Amino acid sequence: MATPVFTNGQPQPATSDCDVLIVGAGPAGLMLANWLSRFSQDVKTRILDKRGTKIFNGQADGLQCRTLEIFDSFDFGHRAWRESNHMLEICLWNPDKDGVIRRSDRIPDTIPGISRFQQVVLHQGRIERFFLDSIAKNSDIKVERATLPISFSFDESVSKNTEAYPITVTIQHLTEEEATPKQSATSQNGAGISDGLFRSNMTPDDTQELINLAQKSKHAGQTETIRAKFMVGCDGAHSWVRNQVGFTLKGESTDYIWGVLDIVPITDFPDIRMRCAIHSASQGSVMVIPRENKLVRLYIQLTTVQNAAGGAKFDRSTITPEVILASAQRIMAPYKLSYKYCDWWTAYQIGQRVGDSFSLHERVFLAGDAVHTHSPKAGQGMNVSMQDTYNLGWKLAHAVRGTHDLSVLKTYQSERRKIAQDLIDFDHKFSRLFSGRPAKDVLDEEGISMDEFKDAFVKGNMFASGIAVDYGSSMIVAKSGSSVEQGDGTDVSIQSGTTAAISKPELTKNISLGKRMPSVKVLNQADARPWHFQELLPSNGCWRLVLFAGDLTDKASLERLNRLGAHLGSKDSFINRYTPPGRPVDSLIEVLTVHSGKRAEFELLSLAEPFHPYTEQDGYDYWKVFVDDVSYHEGENKAYDFYGIDKERGCGVIIRPDQYVSWIGHVDDYENMDKFFSAFMKTPKATIRATNGLTNDTSTLR
Amino acid sequence: MATPVFTNGQPQPATSDCDVLIVGAGPAGLMLANWLSRFSQDVKTRILDKRGTKIFNGQADGLQCRTLEIFDSFDFGHRAWRESNHMLEICLWNPDKDGVIRRSDRIPDTIPGISRFQQVVLHQGRIERFFLDSIAKNSDIKVERATLPISFSFDESVSKNTEAYPITVTIQHLTEEEATPKQSATSQNGAGISDGLFRSNMTPDDTQELINLAQKSKHAGQTETIRAKFMVGCDGAHSWVRNQVGFTLKGESTDYIWGVLDIVPITDFPDIRMRCAIHSASQGSVMVIPRENKLVRLYIQLTTVQNAAGGAKFDRSTITPEVILASAQRIMAPYKLSYKYCDWWTAYQIGQRVGDSFSLHERVFLAGDAVHTHSPKAGQGMNVSMQDTYNLGWKLAHAVRGTHDLSVLKTYQSERRKIAQDLIDFDHKFSRLFSGRPAKDVLDEEGISMDEFKDAFVKGNMFASGIAVDYGSSMIVAKSGSSVEQGDGTDVSIQSGTTAAISKPELTKNISLGKRMPSVKVLNQADARPWHFQELLPSNGCWRLVLFAGDLTDKASLERLNRLGAHLGSKDSFINRYTPPGRPVDSLIEVLTVHSGKRAEFELLSLAEPFHPYTEQDGYDYWKVFVDDVSYHEGENKAYDFYGIDKERGCGVIIRPDQYVSWIGHVDDYENMDKFFSAFMKTPKATIRATNGLTNDTSTLR
Repeated sequence: MATPVFTNGQPQPATSDCDVLIVGAGPAGLMLANWLSRFSQDVKTRILDKRGTKIFNGQADGLQCRTLEIFDSFDFGHRAWRESNHMLEICLWNPDKDGVIRRSDRIPDTIPGISRFQQVVLHQGRIERFFLDSIAKNSDIKVERATLPISFSFDESVSKNTEAYPITVTIQHLTEEEATPKQSATSQNGAGISDGLFRSNMTPDDTQELINLAQKSKHAGQTETIRAKFMVGCDGAHSWVRNQVGFTLKGESTDYIWGVLDIVPITDFPDIRMRCAIHSASQGSVMVIPRENKLVRLYIQLTTVQNAAGGAKFDRSTITPEVILASAQRIMAPYKLSYKYCDWWTAYQIGQRVGDSFSLHERVFLAGDAVHTHSPKAGQGMNVSMQDTYNLGWKLAHAVRGTHDLSVLKTYQSERRKIAQDLIDFDHKFSRLFSGRPAKDVLDEEGISMDEFKDAFVKGNMFASGIAVDYGSSMIVAKSGSSVEQGDGTDVSIQSGTTAAISKPELTKNISLGKRMPSVKVLNQADARPWHFQELLPSNGCWRLVLFAGDLTDKASLERLNRLGAHLGSKDSFINRYTPPGRPVDSLIEVLTVHSGKRAEFELLSLAEPFHPYTEQDGYDYWKVFVDDVSYHEGENKAYDFYGIDKERGCGVIIRPDQYVSWIGHVDDYENMDKFFSAFMKTPKATIRATNGLTNDTSTLR
Repeated sequence: MATPVFTNGQPQPATSDCDVLIVGAGPAGLMLANWLSRFSQDVKTRILDKRGTKIFNGQADGLQCRTLEIFDSFDFGHRAWRESNHMLEICLWNPDKDGVIRRSDRIPDTIPGISRFQQVVLHQGRIERFFLDSIAKNSDIKVERATLPISFSFDESVSKNTEAYPITVTIQHLTEEEATPKQSATSQNGAGISDGLFRSNMTPDDTQELINLAQKSKHAGQTETIRAKFMVGCDGAHSWVRNQVGFTLKGESTDYIWGVLDIVPITDFPDIRMRCAIHSASQGSVMVIPRENKLVRLYIQLTTVQNAAGGAKFDRSTITPEVILASAQRIMAPYKLSYKYCDWWTAYQIGQRVGDSFSLHERVFLAGDAVHTHSPKAGQGMNVSMQDTYNLGWKLAHAVRGTHDLSVLKTYQSERRKIAQDLIDFDHKFSRLFSGRPAKDVLDEEGISMDEFKDAFVKGNMFASGIAVDYGSSMIVAKSGSSVEQGDGTDVSIQSGTTAAISKPELTKNISLGKRMPSVKVLNQADARPWHFQELLPSNGCWRLVLFAGDLTDKASLERLNRLGAHLGSKDSFINRYTPPGRPVDSLIEVLTVHSGKRAEFELLSLAEPFHPYTEQDGYDYWKVFVDDVSYHEGENKAYDFYGIDKERGCGVIIRPDQYVSWIGHVDDYENMDKFFSAFMKTPKATIRATNGLTNDTSTLR
């Protein structure tokens, strides 16, 4: 075991243990802390941030459909949905034959039908607020602000021992003054914004400066040593954690410089409340992103700055809101543009980099900007960062609880580094098309074809929705093919000695192994209420076995399901083997049933008890059996048709705690279900505490 | 002017003034305070409650569609919608030929299509929480708890003077102990609930007891004298305010005694999560109301208690949860019913009473249980009570601001006493059918026909939705016919000397004068986002002039609308005459446009400026013009078809601040619009303060 390395002539600092130490409380760090707040009974989590406060304005703020689905699984999707600006349409503006910009196309911003949400915009400060509220509601985890990690050691020899603490970190508490960045205040009149480039990728990191300051200060003695089982670096592009483990970002910057203005626009440009891509003939490009509270964000290409600096690091002082606005005015002419109120501004240099590794022995992990940086215009950065830790959180929790094998943690790098590489490729292509000069005609080979640009935009929208994510074959995705080829190159196939479960993906047309479970409305059998299927999959750490049971008013189908019920209810079923003793029967693997019979012709209590568990305190559980039938107020949803499942044959689907699909097979194929879970689940430690309630409290349903 | 009448040998108490004094902070009082919180710039409001805390469980809790629409107009409908249990279906259970209860029918709980919401159930404590949060967000009004009014005087001679304070009330502050009722604590195991009859209509009022206690206590000196322009008694069935003004409730009690249990049921009754009406052959009736958090409320007829007491006031101590449960078990046999957890219980005696007057000189008003009491089973009481003050709030605010004539306040009694009378009739009929024994066959004339019961249930559902409310002709509803006959008998026609505006209700099939504006989705012209039309009508005190302008891509239609725009924008238009100087142009009368042309073929800025007001600070307003066109993600809504409006001719609609329809006419009929507003609006006082912003901040839209 490591001993604290930082003593500095001071008394030996206090030492404490935690299961997961999160460094950085931006969106990626908060997503992780939020996940772990759902396991606060079993997992001791701490989260540090060097800043004294959360973000209040500016910064990344597009939210993908998939991110909203994830927020909804944590019960705050509706807050983002209500407060945000919804983007419905993209208008493309290009020079006409006289070089004057004209609207050339309208395309939907979100591809219709891919999600129950559409892409929206809301500033990062509100998103952090939703996370903080959600964490506080579910746990006593508090963000420890103004806290800086200053030393790190790692004991590789114990990294295979689940119970060990291979990580030792010393942290230092800063004073409020030390932790307050010199970010400019919001200007009410557009003047006097002193440093809009704070946190731009054109400014150097200030972590070392903070460390130096803190060590000199009179509070330098306020250090603490933390031993952790796992550590996750969510600490941004200048990641301290990444530097400690010695990983690097690979890639490069381009010559393109862009400015950003968040303003309440005063303009006669007709599409100022649409998302717009405006290519001027020769003055560069503008992207318009309408926001909440009357604000509009403008991404503005700074061709003059770029020319002056020739691509090298240049004089930041030449970039001001006035310079950025003047560029926008040139690009958007003959339309007029000005503002009285500027909320925030910045500038950045386009580049794409991705981390060479995402994990040190599956004990230290990197996520978000610490392992991928790119341009902000496609609205991807914050989404992909949050989805990194959404992927990681439940895996860490089950590792700490001892309910999953440690090897499951390898799938984090396999799944997420692949996504980061895809993102970087996407951004590279998109940035080039957006920053280039429009072609004058088909012979103008140096110019960008506007048809090609539109095509890229339409295709990019599927990627940008976050819905296209398709995790490769692994011990937790029972898909054919090589896990090495389908991921980032990491081998995450099942361990030798276990038998792989076989999927039958042909049993459904529109549920795909490795992709997130699509959503359609189904009715609760007991009370006829319609629910979006995803609402039945809250992020609480449960795996789900979903039984599309066919027509249960048919006797043979009912008997088939009840035979499965007998297996599931038996003492040595995979549910009873792996669920920690004393915990609710639905707390590790929840069984949900969706049948295709007529609701009014079927009685819930004709099903075996595992499909609607009974407890002495609460009686039967009425929130596990659903039906694909006509609703009173929302028409017919045709869930079986939507999913492409045969109404008699049905199928079974295993869904991960993050809503991605693991296995598809026959509804009564108990054997393959058992094989699937047996490959990575572990008989739980007896030390896990029993809970009072005997069923899982998915409170959104009650 | 009155002087304080309560001195009691103590030093003269402090005196302060307020515009509106609300007595009672239950749902009716909180609804009113919430309304007035939207006017906190102009209206000084105080709200008193004799209790020390808000309600935590039990009590009325059905929410009508209309109530949810109103909550949504205050921006917290989604909280009620998410937390509540939704009721979709009513199952009717009746004795079969062998006397065994069977499900005989299923009917939708809410009539499909009448609202975007359906009836739900949520306990009163949460509803009071939403109000308190909303009030705090919009104002600094605080509920003054443990505060008892102890004397009242009224100076009738100044009641016609808007600026005068005809009301003087002395209040006394109680200690916490004095104000804490002896309500039983919630039982975790079903035992030891000592007094479930707290606040039942079978217990005497405790107000006088509280007054006596307070006067004896050492804090008796802590009195205060309040002078008020208006006072509203929302202080329940034993209303102190009603007693002060000398009004009475007319009506009578019946012999029927009912018990109420809120339990987590342990049962094999198949429809326990449905709303059920169960008539047993001879043991009485049960109504099942499924609730949030696994709870179910059972209304249980206590035939044994009734028989023992013979209709007179009886021995309350004979009613216990065990007695109530035993009745339910007899009625629901052969199904089993028990519980481990009881959240609350009570009992009540059915009766119907309505106040003889709702207002003293339009200065003191009564609302809610203070003027109507009835049985709770139809889920009406809290809804009608809140809708009383929803009707009154904006009228009071405009009276205090001086923007409406005081005579508008007469419409409160005309409109709401009529509703109370209808409610009492409904409840009388419904209670009789529900409490009676089912007929054995067609010859059993003493028994209740189950067909008649079902018929009453189906018809009652329209009334019970709250959507059927139809306010009569008055100075604020330009409807033909007699205001005396269409209301409670009060004359609320327009004053002599003004000319009545003429409506043309035939211009729309599905918008009705006197009823609330129905809702369908329309798209924002500027950003293509779909909004439910009611979302464009937040309760902020504005009147709305809605222009269904026809096809604005047609030149003649555009010119017609722009000619109206010239009238509206002129210096002496009704908008500019009545809007207080310095206030946003859309703060008193907001102009909304819905056109029927193709969105993509129309440019917002081709409309005259009154349809999208411009300010120097914020540029154009992009949130006032909408279009009936196909959406990207929600299909075609066909708003013109839904409202039954001709797509070329269009029409204009004036909507009250509470979403009820006042006038329907031709889209360019400026003359009648002007007549309508001129009948009751007043040129505002110069003393109203100017605001900073120059447009109305309907923040839900941005």
